[in-house]
Amino acid sequence: MRSLILCCTIFIISLSPILAQINVWPKPRYISWPKPQATFLSPFFNITTPQYHKYLSPAVARYSNLIFTENYHSIVLPQVKITSTSPPLQTLVIYVRDFLTPLQHGVNESYTLHIPTDGLYGNLTAETVWGAMRGLETFSQLVWGDPVRIASGVYVVDEPIFEHRGVTLDTSRNYYGVEDILRTIGAMSMNKLNVFHWHITDSHSFPLVLPSELELAAKGSYGPDMTYSVADIKRIVEFGFEHGVRVLPEIDMPGHTGSWAEAYPEIVTCANMFWWPAGTTWADRLASEPGTGHLNPLNPKTYQVVQNVVRDVTSLFPEGFYHAGADEVIPGCWKADPTIQKFLSDGGTLSQVLEMFVNSTFPYIVSLNRTVVYWEDVLLDAEIKVVPSILPPENTILQTWNNGPNNTKRIVSAGYRAIVSSADFYYLDCGHGDFLGNESKFDSVNPNDGFNYIGGSGGSWCGPFKTWQRVYDYDITYGLSKEEALLVIGGEVALWSEQADPTVLDARIWPRTSAMAETLWSGNRDVTGKKRYAEATDRLNEWRYRMVSRGIGAEPIQPLWCVTHPGMCNTVQ
Amino acid sequence: MRSLILCCTIFIISLSPILAQINVWPKPRYISWPKPQATFLSPFFNITTPQYHKYLSPAVARYSNLIFTENYHSIVLPQVKITSTSPPLQTLVIYVRDFLTPLQHGVNESYTLHIPTDGLYGNLTAETVWGAMRGLETFSQLVWGDPVRIASGVYVVDEPIFEHRGVTLDTSRNYYGVEDILRTIGAMSMNKLNVFHWHITDSHSFPLVLPSELELAAKGSYGPDMTYSVADIKRIVEFGFEHGVRVLPEIDMPGHTGSWAEAYPEIVTCANMFWWPAGTTWADRLASEPGTGHLNPLNPKTYQVVQNVVRDVTSLFPEGFYHAGADEVIPGCWKADPTIQKFLSDGGTLSQVLEMFVNSTFPYIVSLNRTVVYWEDVLLDAEIKVVPSILPPENTILQTWNNGPNNTKRIVSAGYRAIVSSADFYYLDCGHGDFLGNESKFDSVNPNDGFNYIGGSGGSWCGPFKTWQRVYDYDITYGLSKEEALLVIGGEVALWSEQADPTVLDARIWPRTSAMAETLWSGNRDVTGKKRYAEATDRLNEWRYRMVSRGIGAEPIQPLWCVTHPGMCNTVQ
Repeated sequence: MRSLILCCTIFIISLSPILAQINVWPKPRYISWPKPQATFLSPFFNITTPQYHKYLSPAVARYSNLIFTENYHSIVLPQVKITSTSPPLQTLVIYVRDFLTPLQHGVNESYTLHIPTDGLYGNLTAETVWGAMRGLETFSQLVWGDPVRIASGVYVVDEPIFEHRGVTLDTSRNYYGVEDILRTIGAMSMNKLNVFHWHITDSHSFPLVLPSELELAAKGSYGPDMTYSVADIKRIVEFGFEHGVRVLPEIDMPGHTGSWAEAYPEIVTCANMFWWPAGTTWADRLASEPGTGHLNPLNPKTYQVVQNVVRDVTSLFPEGFYHAGADEVIPGCWKADPTIQKFLSDGGTLSQVLEMFVNSTFPYIVSLNRTVVYWEDVLLDAEIKVVPSILPPENTILQTWNNGPNNTKRIVSAGYRAIVSSADFYYLDCGHGDFLGNESKFDSVNPNDGFNYIGGSGGSWCGPFKTWQRVYDYDITYGLSKEEALLVIGGEVALWSEQADPTVLDARIWPRTSAMAETLWSGNRDVTGKKRYAEATDRLNEWRYRMVSRGIGAEPIQPLWCVTHPGMCNTVQ
Repeated sequence: MRSLILCCTIFIISLSPILAQINVWPKPRYISWPKPQATFLSPFFNITTPQYHKYLSPAVARYSNLIFTENYHSIVLPQVKITSTSPPLQTLVIYVRDFLTPLQHGVNESYTLHIPTDGLYGNLTAETVWGAMRGLETFSQLVWGDPVRIASGVYVVDEPIFEHRGVTLDTSRNYYGVEDILRTIGAMSMNKLNVFHWHITDSHSFPLVLPSELELAAKGSYGPDMTYSVADIKRIVEFGFEHGVRVLPEIDMPGHTGSWAEAYPEIVTCANMFWWPAGTTWADRLASEPGTGHLNPLNPKTYQVVQNVVRDVTSLFPEGFYHAGADEVIPGCWKADPTIQKFLSDGGTLSQVLEMFVNSTFPYIVSLNRTVVYWEDVLLDAEIKVVPSILPPENTILQTWNNGPNNTKRIVSAGYRAIVSSADFYYLDCGHGDFLGNESKFDSVNPNDGFNYIGGSGGSWCGPFKTWQRVYDYDITYGLSKEEALLVIGGEVALWSEQADPTVLDARIWPRTSAMAETLWSGNRDVTGKKRYAEATDRLNEWRYRMVSRGIGAEPIQPLWCVTHPGMCNTVQ
C-alpha cells in the first residue's frame, strides 16, 4: 500500500479557484459530481458483463482498450483531488436487464452509471445492451491522463429525448471508402447517435453491388474500386451493431436514378440529357441539378428491377426502416418520355404516375417487414405528389428538409411521424460554394458587389454555412402542440456530396453534428430553460479536441487560447 | 526497337471526338500543342543542368522522382496518340542564363519549355533558376500514367503577370506543425506561388523561439511542443528556397501583442483584460476580438525588446521584405495604460503615439536592408494612423484587406506599392462561423428567422464563404489607372486561424488558393477578354485531383460525375 501512495501522491492536484470540470458530450440528462474528486484506474481494471453478447462484448473490449490507451490530456486540466485514501477503481460492473432486444427504432437507451469514491467497483446499469453501450461511452469520457484517472463520486442517470438521432451521408455524388464510413459510424457512437442513414445511390453513381442486379453497380458505379461489395455491407452493418448505430439504407427512387440507366436505359426517363435545356425556364428543367434520370413507372420492367433491388437491400440491411427516397420528382424528366407523354395527353397527371409507382413499390417494401421512410416531397411537393391515403401512417415516416419548422408541422399535423433534416439548419454542405460550371454570375464586372455577390450565401442554394451554433440552436419541435411533438421521432444532419468527399468528410461533419447530438439527446437548454449557448461553447471545444485525439478530424471552433483562458472569448463577460 | 514497339502499342489510344486535353495549372501565358500527341519517358530519362546549384539541384532531384513515381491517372484520360514512331524522351535539358540572382521580389520567373515530337531531348530555358523551377513544375504536369507518358509537340512560353503571389498563414491563434507548413509551401510551389507570408505571432501565442529573447516563446507560446525553433525556421526557409517560395516573416506590432506580456508584462498595455467590457460600446472595446494587448510605445523597454526581436528575425529570415503588422491598433487598449492616459491628457493623440512607435522601429528595420510591409491600417485607419511622410514609398509596401478595390486605390494613388488581400475576396476563413462564446444572438427564439439568422453570412464578420469562383473572379487592379496598376505588386490569400488548425489546413487553402494562383499568374480571362469561368471549372477540378494525388487534401469542387461527363454540369450548355 505504501508503494501505491508513493506512486500516486505526485499526482495529487489541489483544488483551485477554477471550477473543476469534467466533460461528457452530449451532456447527460442528470449528472451529479458534488465534489471534484477522482481516483486512478487499477492496472488490473476490467469491465464485466454477466454473459457474452455478440455486440456488447466487442464494445466492452473496445472501450477497455480505449480507456487504457487514450490517455487524453484535457486542455484545461480538471482541478480534482486525488488522495491517497482513494482506492483505485478495479472493475466496472455492467448489469443489463434485457439482453435480447435487438437494435431497432425506439429501443431503450437509458442507463445509470455510478463511480463511487470509496469502492473498488463502479456500476453501469442499463435496460438493454444498447443503453449499456451509451453508458460505456460516458464512462470513457470520465477518464483521462496517464496513469489513467477517473472522476469519482459521479452519478449519472441518462436517456435520450429523441429516439432517432442520425447522419445522412450521400455516397453517390462522390464515393467514400469503407474505412471512411466506419470512422464516421465510430464517431457517431462517441456522440451517442444511433442512425447512419446511408444515401447510397443517386443519379451520379450506383456503388452498391446487389447480387440480383450486378449490372447496376458494374455499369453504374464510378468504377470497380468505387463500389460496396456484399462483404463491405456486412462489415459496415456489423460495425454499426457493435457501436449501437443502425445502418438505414436509402435507395432513392423514382427520381435521382440516372445511374440506373447505365445498366437499364429502357427503364429510365431523360437519362444523360442536359439538365436544364437552353432557353427554358426553371420549371422546365429535367433535374434540379445535374445529372438527370427518373425511373419510368409506366414500364413494367421497372418493377422487376426495383423488386430485385428492394429484396436484396432488405436482405443486406436488417434495419427495420427502409428509405425509399421519392424526393424531387421533376416534371420535365417524365415529360421527356413518349409513353408518359401519351399518358398525360390521355388525361393522366404526373401525380397519378407517381401514385402508380408508390402503389407498386410501397406494399412490397412493407411486406418485407419494413417501415418506409420517404422524403417529404412524396406528400408535400407542389406539383407531383401522392394522396395521403395510399401511405398509411403506421408504415410511413416522412423526412422533412424544406421550409424549416413549417413542413414539420404539416407532416405531423397530417398524422405522420417526422424525421427533421431541415436544410436551413441541418444541411452540412451548405454555404460552401456552387459546383455548377459556366455560370455567368461568376463573371462579376464590378467587384464592389461585395456581399451581394452570388446571393450573399456562399454561392450555395442553401447557404449560408450552418454553424455549430445554428445546428445546436434548432428546436425541432418548434411550433408544435404536445401531441404533434410526439410524432417527431428525431433528426438527422445531412452531408450531400456535390462538394464533399473523403478529404473533407470529418471536418464537414464534426463537431457540428456533435451539436445536434446534444440537442437531440439532452436538449439545448439549461435547467432554467435558457439556451446553453455560453457553456456549450467551452464544452464543445474540449470535446472537439478529444475527438481529434481519437482520430476524428473535427474542425476547430476557437483559438486554443480560448480554451486556456476560460470565459475570455465570450461576447459578454 | 521491336520490343519497344510491342511494349508500347498496347497504349496507343486513338483520337476520339472528345477534345484532347492536357492541363497545366496555373494555365501558362502561351501554350501550343497543335496535335494531341504524346511519347513515353525513357526509363533512363534524366534532367540535366549545366552546373550544380544549391537550390535548383534539389528541385531537379525532386521533380525527377515525382515524374517517375506520381503515375497520375487523369480522371478523363487525355485522348492522345502515341505511335511507334514517337521516340521516348531521354532528357530534359535545362539552360539557365543567370545562375546567381537570388530569390527575391521581382526576380525573373520566365521560362520556355519545348517537348519535341521527334527528338530525344526536351528543352527548358529560363532566365534564372527560379524560372527553371516554374518550368519544371509545368513539365511535371505534362506527365501522366504508368508507364510514364509526356505530351509532345508542346511549346510553352510563360511568365507571371504579378510578381508577388502569396499565402498568409496565421500560426498564433492556432499552432501548425513544421510538416504542415512544409506541405503548404510545397503545394504553393505546385501552383507557382512564391511568397509564404508567415503571420507568426499575435496576441494568442508567440511560438517563435528567438535566441535574444527566449522568454517570449518560453512563456508566450502554447507550450514547448508548440514552438518553432531556430532549426525549424532554417528548415522552413531552406525548403522555401528549394521550392522557389520566399518565406516572409510577420511579427505583428504594436497591436496583436498580448502574448508578449507573458514574458514582459511591463511593455504591454491592456494585456489579459476582457476584450469588450460589459456595457461599453464597440468603440470602447480593447481589441477587435479576444485577446487583448498592445506594445506600449511610451515605455523605452519596449524598444529594447522590439530591437532584439527584429534583429533576430532578420537574421533568421534572409527574405528582403519584413512585415511589421501595424493593423488594428485599438484606442481602448492604449487608453487603458496610465502613461498613455497622461500623454493624452497633456494634449497628445493616439496617432502621435503610433508615430512614435513607427519612428522608433521603421528606420531600424530599413537599416537592416529590409523593405517594410505594413497592413493598410497604418495609413488608412479611421482613428489611429501615421502621417505618410514618415513612411517613404521606396521602403514601404502596404497590404490591403478592407473595403475591396477602394482601399487598393487609396494606397496606390498615394504612391505606395500594394499587396492585395481583400477580405471580401481573399480571406479563406470567412463564412465558417463565429468563435465567440456566450453570444445571445445564438438563442434564436423563432427558427423561421431562416437566412437572416446571424446576418446571413455564415456567422462570420467577413462572411459569406469565399468560393473558388469568387477568388478566381477578382481583378486586383480593378478601377485603377495604368500607372496606378503598376504599383499593385500582387496578392495574398489569408488563412486566419480562429477556426482553423492542421485538421482543416489543406481543405481551407486548396483549391481556392489555386484559383488566385492562376489569376495572378496568367489572368482570369481568355484571349477574347471574357472570364474563363466555364473552362476553368473543368481544369481546376482536374488539378484538384492531381493535388490530392500529391498528398494535398484539397477539397472537391464537383461530383466526380461532372469530371466524367464534361460539360454536363454547366449551367448553360
